[in-house]
Amino acid sequence: MPAFAYRRRVQFAETDLAGIVHFTCFFRYMEEAEHALWRAAGLSIAKAGETTGWPRLAAAFDFQAPLRFEDEFAVLVRITNVSQRSLQYEFTVMKEEQMIGRGTLTTALVSKTPGEPMKALDLPDDVIARLRSASEPPAEV
Amino acid sequence: MPAFAYRRRVQFAETDLAGIVHFTCFFRYMEEAEHALWRAAGLSIAKAGETTGWPRLAAAFDFQAPLRFEDEFAVLVRITNVSQRSLQYEFTVMKEEQMIGRGTLTTALVSKTPGEPMKALDLPDDVIARLRSASEPPAEV
Amino acid sequence: MPAFAYRRRVQFAETDLAGIVHFTCFFRYMEEAEHALWRAAGLSIAKAGETTGWPRLAAAFDFQAPLRFEDEFAVLVRITNVSQRSLQYEFTVMKEEQMIGRGTLTTALVSKTPGEPMKALDLPDDVIARLRSASEPPAEV
Amino acid sequence: MPAFAYRRRVQFAETDLAGIVHFTCFFRYMEEAEHALWRAAGLSIAKAGETTGWPRLAAAFDFQAPLRFEDEFAVLVRITNVSQRSLQYEFTVMKEEQMIGRGTLTTALVSKTPGEPMKALDLPDDVIARLRSASEPPAEV
Repeated sequence: MPAFAYRRRVQFAETDLAGIVHFTCFFRYMEEAEHALWRAAGLSIAKAGETTGWPRLAAAFDFQAPLRFEDEFAVLVRITNVSQRSLQYEFTVMKEEQMIGRGTLTTALVSKTPGEPMKALDLPDDVIARLRSASEPPAEV
Repeated sequence: MPAFAYRRRVQFAETDLAGIVHFTCFFRYMEEAEHALWRAAGLSIAKAGETTGWPRLAAAFDFQAPLRFEDEFAVLVRITNVSQRSLQYEFTVMKEEQMIGRGTLTTALVSKTPGEPMKALDLPDDVIARLRSASEPPAEV
Repeated sequence: MPAFAYRRRVQFAETDLAGIVHFTCFFRYMEEAEHALWRAAGLSIAKAGETTGWPRLAAAFDFQAPLRFEDEFAVLVRITNVSQRSLQYEFTVMKEEQMIGRGTLTTALVSKTPGEPMKALDLPDDVIARLRSASEPPAEV
Repeated sequence: MPAFAYRRRVQFAETDLAGIVHFTCFFRYMEEAEHALWRAAGLSIAKAGETTGWPRLAAAFDFQAPLRFEDEFAVLVRITNVSQRSLQYEFTVMKEEQMIGRGTLTTALVSKTPGEPMKALDLPDDVIARLRSASEPPAEV
């Protein structure tokens, strides 16, 4: 199944006293992969001066095997669910052929006015189309 | 419903360019509350020299409202599920009376021998009993 | 010598595979102590809607002994140098009577206009006076 | 002046509410560059099972300009000082031709026996030679 791949190496500061990557880092890895996908789609999730943002509605990860210092790994990203006001990505973390874990991020689009609560907006079709296109490369003929 | 409460203030380094707490910090807050519960139970989740550890099987959080710099909040912890080899906690993050979000952590107990894969162990009854007792204070009479 | 004291416990996520607190965390500890001093002075270093900020000019720390998971420690803060456009704090990290390390943070005050470079401002006398007062309690008579 | 170059992009989680990279991240960037230099020298600073480590004696950074989300930058590493029991690196962070800041890390080599204080060791000549070689490529003829 096609997906966008983000590649990374474990850094020392990401390990904990158990000698493995601290579990919270996998949420950073998912976000880094998400933003790399946006760049691959010719977009940025946070342009200077913007009055909108993409906060999280939900985040989850299931852990299958640990990562250790200097391990090289890939985070595969797919768009799995799009509704009028939410976008869900699925992420699979692989160390070569070994499954390390799998997770999801669900985000919304909001307008931000200082001093007021965030207000949900409809997701722009063109952004979704570009993200889909970047994460689902066309089949080769 | 009774629960153990861990209290905390948002630190500057936990915010991001959107002006709110970065979503990954909520996973740190859950872990801090878990370890505070262990201490309240007279335990430590990582004693020096131990050859066992409590890695995560799963982590999830649903976000309802943002936290901002210097906000004071509470993380309420409850033990919601215990099986032979897994322990699940539920966490509720509150800013005074406002619900900020809710999440879960699921952990296992493993033995760690350098150079070998982690090996799952049965959860010790006395640890579970002490955690339950610390998170479910007896009803007042 | 009098100083403001900020108290804290080492969290699990702050440790690394060497089993001790990762060195970068000491810079977070210094900042947390700085902001606690501001609160003790009745101030906040980052009020919502402000168009000024306090970026770092320099940061340094000398390490003498490690901190480990669940260690309780204090960060003592003193204002050591104030010029027209810079403010320097000195921090001493103590674990009971043991010196863990010592560092400094030097900050400026800037105005921030989106799309323009930051511009240095003179430090407000009243802020400095309040910080001094909070970090140097009057001698008892 | 020759130096080893480590290249990186700013991640979202590294920004703070001021809209710039949090100052503590520059200490992570220096460490990442240090470890990349070790790999370029055919070494790892933390091999599994080792009973030695390289803790910090001192860390310092002077900030000249901020980095922002998605900025690409380079960290140039040079070995500037080697004594019998300490190794100092100098780091320069550049965003294209713009100087962002400059810092140093000073490290020692220690043996670690569980339950005992760390004990300083002499630095191995071959490690120093390999790091020097990787950070100071031979002049072209």
